[in-house]
Amino acid sequence: MKPVKVGLLGLGTVGTGVIRIVEGHQEDLSRQVGSPVVIEKVAVRSLDKKRNIEIESSKLTDNPWDVIRDPEIDIIVEVMGGVNETKAYILEALDRGKHIVTANKDLMALYGSEIVAKAQEKQCDVFYEASVAGGIPIIRTLIEGFSSDRIMKIMGIVNGTTNYILTKMSLEGASYDDVLREAQQLGYAETDPTSDVEGLDAARKMTILGTLGFRTDIELKDVEVRGISSVTKEDIVHAKRLGYELKLLGIADREEEEVSISVQPTMVKSTHPIAAVNGVFNAVYVYGEAVGETMFYGAGAGEMPTATSIVADLIAVVKNLKLGVNGLKAIVPYKPKKLKSDDQISYKNFLLLNVADKAGVLAQITQVFAEYDVSLESVVQSPNANTSDAEIIIVTHNASKANMDKVLNHFESLDVIHRVKSVYRVEG
Amino acid sequence: MKPVKVGLLGLGTVGTGVIRIVEGHQEDLSRQVGSPVVIEKVAVRSLDKKRNIEIESSKLTDNPWDVIRDPEIDIIVEVMGGVNETKAYILEALDRGKHIVTANKDLMALYGSEIVAKAQEKQCDVFYEASVAGGIPIIRTLIEGFSSDRIMKIMGIVNGTTNYILTKMSLEGASYDDVLREAQQLGYAETDPTSDVEGLDAARKMTILGTLGFRTDIELKDVEVRGISSVTKEDIVHAKRLGYELKLLGIADREEEEVSISVQPTMVKSTHPIAAVNGVFNAVYVYGEAVGETMFYGAGAGEMPTATSIVADLIAVVKNLKLGVNGLKAIVPYKPKKLKSDDQISYKNFLLLNVADKAGVLAQITQVFAEYDVSLESVVQSPNANTSDAEIIIVTHNASKANMDKVLNHFESLDVIHRVKSVYRVEG
Repeated sequence: MKPVKVGLLGLGTVGTGVIRIVEGHQEDLSRQVGSPVVIEKVAVRSLDKKRNIEIESSKLTDNPWDVIRDPEIDIIVEVMGGVNETKAYILEALDRGKHIVTANKDLMALYGSEIVAKAQEKQCDVFYEASVAGGIPIIRTLIEGFSSDRIMKIMGIVNGTTNYILTKMSLEGASYDDVLREAQQLGYAETDPTSDVEGLDAARKMTILGTLGFRTDIELKDVEVRGISSVTKEDIVHAKRLGYELKLLGIADREEEEVSISVQPTMVKSTHPIAAVNGVFNAVYVYGEAVGETMFYGAGAGEMPTATSIVADLIAVVKNLKLGVNGLKAIVPYKPKKLKSDDQISYKNFLLLNVADKAGVLAQITQVFAEYDVSLESVVQSPNANTSDAEIIIVTHNASKANMDKVLNHFESLDVIHRVKSVYRVEG
Repeated sequence: MKPVKVGLLGLGTVGTGVIRIVEGHQEDLSRQVGSPVVIEKVAVRSLDKKRNIEIESSKLTDNPWDVIRDPEIDIIVEVMGGVNETKAYILEALDRGKHIVTANKDLMALYGSEIVAKAQEKQCDVFYEASVAGGIPIIRTLIEGFSSDRIMKIMGIVNGTTNYILTKMSLEGASYDDVLREAQQLGYAETDPTSDVEGLDAARKMTILGTLGFRTDIELKDVEVRGISSVTKEDIVHAKRLGYELKLLGIADREEEEVSISVQPTMVKSTHPIAAVNGVFNAVYVYGEAVGETMFYGAGAGEMPTATSIVADLIAVVKNLKLGVNGLKAIVPYKPKKLKSDDQISYKNFLLLNVADKAGVLAQITQVFAEYDVSLESVVQSPNANTSDAEIIIVTHNASKANMDKVLNHFESLDVIHRVKSVYRVEG
């Protein structure tokens, strides 16, 4: 049988994993797809670099165009990262009728619809399971497993670095800075951790999940983003005392046809399944109108988990190739996008306030909430040994974002409130 | 566009859910598959029964053959249950070139390979996502999501009734009999609960998961089965004290090419993700060589979750129909089956013994373990206020099932052991 020929763009950690699986599981692969699968050519940054894997030097090139333009190659696996240059490679590969498997969340979050449209035009497959939550087959699940249902809510722990940091802070009472430093030493966080800790990485992944879940074209700019760099030990202690865990959650929800999507540190009821997801693990919680609560848990990154998803996509492309049906099952968002306004976005809020320690303060504060129609679930005066201020913890009932913004705005002009120390969304 | 016509066998809870989704989501369905999907004919037990759903009486028949033999019908959705008669319907439907979507775990566990072989011969699809773990798309995940990986272990809470009972016993300290009675009143357990509580239902589902995960033809008789009817409050208290939850777990594992598969009440480390799966929820934990730990969680039964899976399968069949590729992606087990012998099956064990309360007893007991090469992780003498016996709790290190059987056999002839009260597998 004629082997299927694959070109690989990038030979970092994940690319190495792809070669390991394709070569190590050749018999299983052949059984499933009906012919051998061969890594034909690999574009690398430097030809001389020492590698963790043996590969014939004749297969290596430092020019990605050599791979894209090789007429022998049927499928491009893109694991080099980057956006603009990479997009050019992918679009030309599609123009040449090659199918694409990519792990590139940045590319798919920014240019997914353009790439999928081009693939449709050329009857090519574009699969990107590995771009979200590494080894967890969540994209397949949203496209096929829940094809019959109406997804109403997706909550994701989709960034391992921040979950590692928050878990450590929670379990060990450590500070953000200390844990970040440790995570950097362990290789769980980048030297410049901004994209992870400020929530941008998670926002890209939520863009992809929201688009698939709601079948509407969610763009990165639609995602409200807040990171974890201002989370304190104290916040986590307060969360625990109230029965919550603090997690960086991507939340995409919808009512009727209106959707909202955000990434923010969120207090999740500790009995909620996603609250127990610790360390570098990822999980995606999906609530479907018919199916109810579901959750998908696993490694969100790493050489082999990510490579598992890539090679699963590769197998799917090869099966389609054998059947002659590539590009015919693409999901193109078909619902017009309707984003919720701040009046329609509604959730519970946790607030930690430093206030003047004198009579009548609580009355003034609760009066402000009442003025903007925000009702309160609980108000606790917390002991504060360190200062002469009093500390007040408030959990609201569901309140619109618009009204909460008004409350917070009003607080700025209220002398008895010395500082709004923390505000978090509350879930579950 | 010509509508796709579906025949439904059975109109109980799940069948009603299928009609609700197909009719309620018609626009979404048409968008996805490119034509309307119509429930054309429905076989029911009694034509006169009052129903929770409106359906034209002209579509109803009390003769399943009317549905099977209707040349207009493309796809049969089987939700009537039963084995022998149902198998005859399915096989004839396949003979007539109709595709099958079924929720019937009993049928698939017993005759899955015969049915899939017939489907292959006739180039028909047979999908059965709903047969295991209701709304959780675990079959898709094993077939497609992890197509690139080597699955080494599957652990499943795949029976909601028993998980509800054990959860209640654990959270409320209630007795098995009391909780079972309550579960029957709530409709979570059948009047005759044998198939659930004795583990047979779970065994059928594990047969299906094992076959797909290991790509070898696991049969129901290969599954060692033990139910929960002898689990006591006391066992659960002891489990908790040692940091475990007691769950009815299906466990399929493999080393190299040798597999073993069982269903039994198991003590799971409380930090393991599956230990937190409570109530009627189901979860399947999958460990893949490359992907590592994953878990899939959701509703294991119920009208709408199960119907979600059925209609997702229906959509997949219709898409294949449009592309002309039905029956070409079936998974046929291709690995020769090698079952582990009792020498090769190995795990930790928990034992609760009633022993004579006198000097030298512990020495005699530990001597027996030593004789059969079973080493011990912990031995605790537990207070026992009620009797004059002493109570000893032992947790072994990994030990072969063969050796543990010898130990237990030897115990029968040991006078100082008055009773082996409990023996459980320990995981995690």
